[in-house]
Amino acid sequence: MRFNQFGKVTVSYPQALKELQTIRFLTGVELNKITPNALWLHFLAQASPLAHSQSAKKARLNSLLANEYQTVLEYTTTNTVNAASFYAVALQLLGFEVDEDFDLADVFTALKRLNLAYHPTINSKEDLLLAWYDLLETVGKNGRTLLDNLASAGYFTSFYELAATQKPLFFNGKSLPIFDTSKLISEVVYVESDLDSDHDGRADLLKVEIIRPLDTNNGLKVPALYTASPYNQGTNDQLGKKLTHKVDVKLATKSVTNTSYEEIAYHAPKVGPIEKRPVAGHAQFAEESLERELSYTFNDYMLARGFAAVYAAGIGTKDSDGLRTCGSPAETASTVAVIEWLAGSRKAFTNKTDNIEIKAWWCNGAVAMTGKSYLGTLATAAATSGTPGLKTIISEAAISNWYDYYRDGGLVVAPGGFPGEDADVLIAECFSRKKEAADYLQIKAKFEADLKQVTTDQDRTSGNYNRFWDARNYLKDLHNIKCGIVMVHGLNDWNVKLRNVFNLYKQTENLKLKRKLILHQGQHIYINNFQSLDFSDMMNLWLSHKLYGLDNQAPEILPDVLVQDNTLEGTWHQFADWDGAETELHSLHFDQHQLVAKPNPAAGPASFTDHLPAEAFKRYSQNYHQWQADLLARKAPLTTSSLLFESQPLTTAIYLQGTPRLKLRVAASQDHGLLSFMLVDYGQAKRLGKTPDLLLSKGLNAGYRFREDNLVEFKLKKASPYQLITKGHINLQNRTSLWQNDELKPDTFYDLNVVLQPMFYKLPAGHKLGLIVYSSDMEMTVHANEELNYSLDLAACRLDFDASRIAD
Amino acid sequence: MRFNQFGKVTVSYPQALKELQTIRFLTGVELNKITPNALWLHFLAQASPLAHSQSAKKARLNSLLANEYQTVLEYTTTNTVNAASFYAVALQLLGFEVDEDFDLADVFTALKRLNLAYHPTINSKEDLLLAWYDLLETVGKNGRTLLDNLASAGYFTSFYELAATQKPLFFNGKSLPIFDTSKLISEVVYVESDLDSDHDGRADLLKVEIIRPLDTNNGLKVPALYTASPYNQGTNDQLGKKLTHKVDVKLATKSVTNTSYEEIAYHAPKVGPIEKRPVAGHAQFAEESLERELSYTFNDYMLARGFAAVYAAGIGTKDSDGLRTCGSPAETASTVAVIEWLAGSRKAFTNKTDNIEIKAWWCNGAVAMTGKSYLGTLATAAATSGTPGLKTIISEAAISNWYDYYRDGGLVVAPGGFPGEDADVLIAECFSRKKEAADYLQIKAKFEADLKQVTTDQDRTSGNYNRFWDARNYLKDLHNIKCGIVMVHGLNDWNVKLRNVFNLYKQTENLKLKRKLILHQGQHIYINNFQSLDFSDMMNLWLSHKLYGLDNQAPEILPDVLVQDNTLEGTWHQFADWDGAETELHSLHFDQHQLVAKPNPAAGPASFTDHLPAEAFKRYSQNYHQWQADLLARKAPLTTSSLLFESQPLTTAIYLQGTPRLKLRVAASQDHGLLSFMLVDYGQAKRLGKTPDLLLSKGLNAGYRFREDNLVEFKLKKASPYQLITKGHINLQNRTSLWQNDELKPDTFYDLNVVLQPMFYKLPAGHKLGLIVYSSDMEMTVHANEELNYSLDLAACRLDFDASRIAD
Repeated sequence: MRFNQFGKVTVSYPQALKELQTIRFLTGVELNKITPNALWLHFLAQASPLAHSQSAKKARLNSLLANEYQTVLEYTTTNTVNAASFYAVALQLLGFEVDEDFDLADVFTALKRLNLAYHPTINSKEDLLLAWYDLLETVGKNGRTLLDNLASAGYFTSFYELAATQKPLFFNGKSLPIFDTSKLISEVVYVESDLDSDHDGRADLLKVEIIRPLDTNNGLKVPALYTASPYNQGTNDQLGKKLTHKVDVKLATKSVTNTSYEEIAYHAPKVGPIEKRPVAGHAQFAEESLERELSYTFNDYMLARGFAAVYAAGIGTKDSDGLRTCGSPAETASTVAVIEWLAGSRKAFTNKTDNIEIKAWWCNGAVAMTGKSYLGTLATAAATSGTPGLKTIISEAAISNWYDYYRDGGLVVAPGGFPGEDADVLIAECFSRKKEAADYLQIKAKFEADLKQVTTDQDRTSGNYNRFWDARNYLKDLHNIKCGIVMVHGLNDWNVKLRNVFNLYKQTENLKLKRKLILHQGQHIYINNFQSLDFSDMMNLWLSHKLYGLDNQAPEILPDVLVQDNTLEGTWHQFADWDGAETELHSLHFDQHQLVAKPNPAAGPASFTDHLPAEAFKRYSQNYHQWQADLLARKAPLTTSSLLFESQPLTTAIYLQGTPRLKLRVAASQDHGLLSFMLVDYGQAKRLGKTPDLLLSKGLNAGYRFREDNLVEFKLKKASPYQLITKGHINLQNRTSLWQNDELKPDTFYDLNVVLQPMFYKLPAGHKLGLIVYSSDMEMTVHANEELNYSLDLAACRLDFDASRIAD
Repeated sequence: MRFNQFGKVTVSYPQALKELQTIRFLTGVELNKITPNALWLHFLAQASPLAHSQSAKKARLNSLLANEYQTVLEYTTTNTVNAASFYAVALQLLGFEVDEDFDLADVFTALKRLNLAYHPTINSKEDLLLAWYDLLETVGKNGRTLLDNLASAGYFTSFYELAATQKPLFFNGKSLPIFDTSKLISEVVYVESDLDSDHDGRADLLKVEIIRPLDTNNGLKVPALYTASPYNQGTNDQLGKKLTHKVDVKLATKSVTNTSYEEIAYHAPKVGPIEKRPVAGHAQFAEESLERELSYTFNDYMLARGFAAVYAAGIGTKDSDGLRTCGSPAETASTVAVIEWLAGSRKAFTNKTDNIEIKAWWCNGAVAMTGKSYLGTLATAAATSGTPGLKTIISEAAISNWYDYYRDGGLVVAPGGFPGEDADVLIAECFSRKKEAADYLQIKAKFEADLKQVTTDQDRTSGNYNRFWDARNYLKDLHNIKCGIVMVHGLNDWNVKLRNVFNLYKQTENLKLKRKLILHQGQHIYINNFQSLDFSDMMNLWLSHKLYGLDNQAPEILPDVLVQDNTLEGTWHQFADWDGAETELHSLHFDQHQLVAKPNPAAGPASFTDHLPAEAFKRYSQNYHQWQADLLARKAPLTTSSLLFESQPLTTAIYLQGTPRLKLRVAASQDHGLLSFMLVDYGQAKRLGKTPDLLLSKGLNAGYRFREDNLVEFKLKKASPYQLITKGHINLQNRTSLWQNDELKPDTFYDLNVVLQPMFYKLPAGHKLGLIVYSSDMEMTVHANEELNYSLDLAACRLDFDASRIAD
């Protein structure tokens, strides 16, 4: 159990005093007259919002020990509060248990072990006040600050009645949960886009779901956290399953071409203006409310803190017009349209028939986009539009280039966990207009024709980067971005692979944007409910700054690059860059089964055959988890269909950073072929679990009696012998580029460069770095169990990567 | 996907008319003038609570298809509503999807497949009205009735404003969700018991948490659903782990005794009166509120429907007085004290110091107890007190005799999943007074002394039934029960084993109580969030009858014995009894490796040795799941430490019901020994998963914008070769009784009767019934890997069980 706080601001005594007054922690106190003990007892009584009488508050004080032998009340009759007694009580307030979590006789050891900040000496009222201020901002056992936990117990309910003009309130640079979540207003409006993606001659209307504090009805203008989620109106899971492509097919031999990028570059076609609806009237309030939006719990957390939550699923989803697409410019425009409405530059209507306009009059015009995966992807897409209302995006596990999601190296490479999925499958899954029978009846034919075209255009046969994918590459438009970006990605995310965030991070380096990068040890998950990181608090600081314009130094306070340690529980490190100046280049050469420091011109060839006995092939193609585990563990028969090269055990721990690069000389026995690579950490060690452990079911409340979240954390599991670091794939016919098909003569050696997926990995001393070279990837590539032999000319092979030494 | 409704009442036309008026579905309708189509459209518009304008309601109607080609609005211009169009639309309202779930051209086939009730002909307004009434009570895709789903969308929010005197309202015999859950009142009071379990000279005060509708402040009196949960104030998990007993110990040889039951019978000691607190004043409202009670989601569901929820953890838990115990009469008295306060015959105070009395003036005096496991156990315990305020219990996965939880057949037999746990461990885990440092400081010494005594009294050495266990046997007091009982238990629950509910069921047979039994296919779980069963609706019917006194025929309507099918998804059958008159006795004899119809006097002996190679023993004792799987699959080396006897394949399917009984003649090679048994279904078949699948995360709302639950269901998994049916254990020294130690001479044959755990299992035709005889049970018994040989004289062995034939 270890805590890491990055969203906490250090303030001066006058500032602390003022803020404590704001949140009514000094109400009734005459600071110049009160004794330190009395002030302490006053704070503690205030921090008991569930106790409504003096007797009940006294009972609470009687339940807290100030040292091994005395309750707070006993202690204060004979002693004066000092740092030891203050933190003995503080740890109890924070939810830590005597004996189980800390020893009353030595609270400072516990504070250090838990990595909680504290004041080593408390000798005066001023010290006490500052220590109390900081304590309110210190996280407890559930990873939330004491102030957040007091809020969950009802501390701020009396603030609900403040006039709208007095809201929001900030404490320590962050907006406070003073908004009554039992009185949230939910509304549906229909934003009119500039698109006519279903070609019905009318501009597509987009359903938008809004949840906003009641205070907005009384004059408060709030920012909007907007989450664009094509999944939000439901998904067609059976249809998606039906359309999923077969992956036990042969890799195609591609005709040699000399294609240049210009030939496949996407240029937006000129489209005439779409006729807009005439405005027949205006409305202040919507005509539809929501039952339950599919919310992101971080948005719920911010809803209690004075930020509206806005959800839209986009063209082709239930109750919206248009045809579904996947990553196209139309989808970006559909996403941006909602921001434009929120910022006042686009129309919305109360329904699809009456042409009654409704404005986002309750919005202060500042929008942030949030969400993970496809949701974060659309945040990234919207940012590349440069639309002025968008002040920042928190882009989690986001795609930056759809080619890097469904393809790699001239190959069809599935997102991990979803073999056979492709753009057309995702379109069909998200086409939730299908869920409304009457609507589907009239759009069905267009949908099917359009889907057929996508299936053709995505081109699963060649796997090349083409015009379809160029239209879906947000990296081309990064120069348009004007807003700050928080990038969050799991270092074990094989669904949206790391290249997506790496490219977004690297290619915005020189754009003078405020950028923050958080790399965690998860797979494809959210991290706002982790015990070890104050993610919600960090983002509150960021959004209070970006959307409410609060001068809280958020860009300076939040770390630029924050990486979760892969060898320790609950440990996060700050870095200057992903693969920056602190690293040095390492080159390893191939010599038989080894990765060695110097090239061996006599190393000779090594080969393997991408073919398995029929039974093993069937079994592995039905269970790719087992296949990967057995491949990493070097189990037969996978030892004959792959090669492993291992380094010597490391003498010191290093961080592997950025992208590993392979230079290879390779020959295949046929006129087509693909190579796959895994970089592996070999060494017996306890490693973090694949998924976080559940610590506390429903243990986090977004506000007071509002929506609940589970508290989770990655925990070390029993020792295991290896861990996948990263992967890579290439079609041997794409040695020149992703769009040109190179000649591949059987049994002829060719030189090849491969860039693997990026990494940020602590490789401990004593462990070996392993490289597995193989072909068919049961989880990601096509595989037909062909008898296909691959040979490597080891003397001409090399692995380059960047790493920094770790001083332990 | 298959639905089963048992909580639905058939009503007359006048009754339906009246009730539809009550819930405002006929407001503004002149029934004698309106056309059937207009009435239908009116109903549909009313069933769109999220649409607040005529245009929005019209849009909703336009989204529903009445047949393959026409929306409702189009259809009604040319046709008149009939059963086909009514149910085409109905299925959409219920959340089923066209194509994915049903075919618009043939709705009746879908209704039959889904097992949903319907009206085959709708020819008149009366037909339509009755069909609509029934549709409101028909469950949708999420297993909740349409009316419940309308409630979640806000249909009943306008009913919040009804005067308290007009509440509750009932529809179809069940209380309606017309209570504003955003305005629930939460309170803490301290009930004064007649106990002084911590021997401090003062009657133990018990903390009680109350959540009640705001209407109670305005004169409404509501019943209470009371859940007694020793876990509710937190658990000492680290301490519990530390105290868990070692199970890799030798089975003790017991000295021969001639003990009679009278010698070990528990008789309550006479205790002098405990001095009570003087009343210093009275209060109407409590001084403390709650942050978040650890609620049972079924209680949440009923909270929205006008039933208060009451939680108490009992003596020895945080904020209560007393020492923790486990199943003792003191715990029962502590549990009952809360009911007595709710019913008006006991005092409670607002805090522990001021002696200010507070009454449960908001309660109508009718109490039901709810909850699973320890919670259901305390409900059963309270029922045996006969306390008049307790009108019914819904006792789920409950213990009826603590000997049957921690012991069996003269052996320590752990609850499945918790080897080494015992009464003392559970006491320590639930002693949440430890969580409040100051309180713990002063009670610690008494707690530790008391715990030490329990460790002695529970007697892990002999495993016998003794005075300690006799004090914890609720079956002795069943004759005191006055209230109705709903028993719910999982047929795969190896934590609280089936004997507990079987004995409760069988031994209350002649008590003239209203009894209902529900046996599901789960392990140790709740079933109020299943798709296939309307459990919440059934219980609403039951509780509206029992606690509000509504004459709704609940006892007659609800099935007496309801059993979930173990071979089909979502299928529930009604029976007259668990092992009643429909069954016939089957006797199978042992012949080498077979179970045969007739005894073979020449069958000869069979033997096995309870000893494994050291490596296998270590591996299996650390992973009892693998051990059980390998034992059932007959993997070496477990084949030498057990015997399997198999029947011939069954020619017809049968239900195995009640308790299997074994008559054995057995010899052991030492002076101590234990035998274990597994009855097994051998046959390749798809079987239900061990745990239910998640269908819809947060898909169920307890009311409107209130607490959320996941929707789940057991699904058939890929075919497997076997399934455990039931188990049993016996100490060879307990052939006479659970309290007498019999002589056991090595290598001497003794006759032995063993009753295995009860079952209700459909054994399909073609499958074989298997009996595995073994000794050490890695999950449940002690095991020290002794070299201990067991021999069975097969000619004198027999398996008896009761079964009924299934006409497929």
